[in-house]
Amino acid sequence: MRSGIGSASERLYCSTRMPAPFRYRHRVSFAECTVGNHVYYARYLEILERARGEFFRAVGTPLAALQTSELIFPVIEAHLHYEAAARYDDELIVEVVVTELDRLHISFAYGVSNTRNTIILTGRTRHICAGPDEKPRRMPPEVFKELNTAFTGAPAPRPAATPRLPKGPSFPV
Amino acid sequence: MRSGIGSASERLYCSTRMPAPFRYRHRVSFAECTVGNHVYYARYLEILERARGEFFRAVGTPLAALQTSELIFPVIEAHLHYEAAARYDDELIVEVVVTELDRLHISFAYGVSNTRNTIILTGRTRHICAGPDEKPRRMPPEVFKELNTAFTGAPAPRPAATPRLPKGPSFPV
Amino acid sequence: MRSGIGSASERLYCSTRMPAPFRYRHRVSFAECTVGNHVYYARYLEILERARGEFFRAVGTPLAALQTSELIFPVIEAHLHYEAAARYDDELIVEVVVTELDRLHISFAYGVSNTRNTIILTGRTRHICAGPDEKPRRMPPEVFKELNTAFTGAPAPRPAATPRLPKGPSFPV
Amino acid sequence: MRSGIGSASERLYCSTRMPAPFRYRHRVSFAECTVGNHVYYARYLEILERARGEFFRAVGTPLAALQTSELIFPVIEAHLHYEAAARYDDELIVEVVVTELDRLHISFAYGVSNTRNTIILTGRTRHICAGPDEKPRRMPPEVFKELNTAFTGAPAPRPAATPRLPKGPSFPV
Repeated sequence: MRSGIGSASERLYCSTRMPAPFRYRHRVSFAECTVGNHVYYARYLEILERARGEFFRAVGTPLAALQTSELIFPVIEAHLHYEAAARYDDELIVEVVVTELDRLHISFAYGVSNTRNTIILTGRTRHICAGPDEKPRRMPPEVFKELNTAFTGAPAPRPAATPRLPKGPSFPV
Repeated sequence: MRSGIGSASERLYCSTRMPAPFRYRHRVSFAECTVGNHVYYARYLEILERARGEFFRAVGTPLAALQTSELIFPVIEAHLHYEAAARYDDELIVEVVVTELDRLHISFAYGVSNTRNTIILTGRTRHICAGPDEKPRRMPPEVFKELNTAFTGAPAPRPAATPRLPKGPSFPV
Repeated sequence: MRSGIGSASERLYCSTRMPAPFRYRHRVSFAECTVGNHVYYARYLEILERARGEFFRAVGTPLAALQTSELIFPVIEAHLHYEAAARYDDELIVEVVVTELDRLHISFAYGVSNTRNTIILTGRTRHICAGPDEKPRRMPPEVFKELNTAFTGAPAPRPAATPRLPKGPSFPV
Repeated sequence: MRSGIGSASERLYCSTRMPAPFRYRHRVSFAECTVGNHVYYARYLEILERARGEFFRAVGTPLAALQTSELIFPVIEAHLHYEAAARYDDELIVEVVVTELDRLHISFAYGVSNTRNTIILTGRTRHICAGPDEKPRRMPPEVFKELNTAFTGAPAPRPAATPRLPKGPSFPV
């Protein structure tokens, strides 16, 4: 069994320019467990949502405030690798790092470990930036700047290339 | 927006030897929806579990019976592509096909569409065959045979190569 | 152990004027089970929501259509008696009857049994009729009429007394 | 609208001998919200489970440890009054008090408020003490003593009357 946080971190990011990952702690409840006393596979996505929400708050752009200014980040992809079972009452440490950022997209990598340093789950999610109509919408410069600082580990030196808006239908989730 | 079932099927399988995908219908409830009236991203994994469960039943190896004979199929990987939002009261059609099978592993591909032929989600899950101790366990020949028929669309001509048992620690989910 | 459907029905309604209860079938998934292989206590409320949704559809007033005409039925009370455990893959029969109806409220009683006639759960929910602003709103006569037929088991002979609108703040759930 | 914590407390307990309620804080996630941006009615039971779990830990009898010594507390009744809607990102304060205790039963009352002192929900749950076979089992004296201290707000002066074991079938949830 691989060792926990260290290895998870190594897998998640290795560039020296990257900041330390954001950390979130989560206690496993009965609601999250299924037959056999382990966390049900869908429930990890709820835990990642909680970690991501606290990441946005820590960065200075809480999702509730972004939503008020008509900006949402629906998920377009999720990839999960289940490495070991988490059990009732386990305390989980979720590490979050930004792995991609432009004014239309943000991607996260996650490593979930328990307090015995066992890696439970690694995963990635990719999100599009959208308006309340669920259509792609470029994030405002100030939001991009905050997220970019978290992405690069330093104040953003220059704006990232502006991607073209896809001629999109509605976007999901 | 891509058209639904046809395209989903094309993506899921194109070999002529493959059987038609198993289909499962699901009605979206309020419990599954989140802010903005769309299905929450974790909930699709619950819907896929339901579809998979009915697939196992249709194949003649219901999971409840397998569990009684000490065989479980924990998920080790899940990959989800969210294509469009599903809404409250939508009826969803879930297509399930087996994409990998040996005596230790089974993988599924899924396509979820609504009744307006919009692709909602495509995904894959990979499962290991395990005993109640959560350690890898080769599936019995008769179980393999049933699943292989579903996999190949014809009675299995010869047993698949038997993979070596990984020296595994416990397996998750 | 009490016998199932009969007793549940007896508890739920005994007036001869009442129609047979609406029935909904539900298959228990792993997502709904917790440690010890039984349905997690919150999950029954999701199953009751599904049964209630199908009841509204059967009566001719699907909730999705009501929502479009700006009518919602938030829950204001729920009471649950857990009688026995439901297990993975159990098929549950949910019986639904209307036990209270006026133009601002509707209440339901539920009996959940398995196919071995064991009563799993009995419960009640009380709902207020509200607009999209979550403020109380009297249901339109045609909606009331459909529900009243289900309530009384016969075409409503005369409108129920119209309750006064409470000076309400927002209403929940 | 009633004012929050004060009123909730008044409703929950008024005896001077009672200790201050245990408090648990919970942040509302998207996973918990449904259409219309409010917490889905079943999700409160998950939040109450979390609060109850932390209560047991605070009292010195964590549920995970009790489970290891073959003691579980399945719910046999739940009563919920939904007073106002909780929204995404709301921080909720859950107050928990023990309202009934004997060696076979424990009941809790709950008050959930937001940080603007609005009462969101009040509720009660009743639990039976059971073994892993789901049959009633008297709680050991030391567990009873810890819980009784929390119940009475003082070291338990004498053991509560021992209820007779019901000739029970299996017990749920």
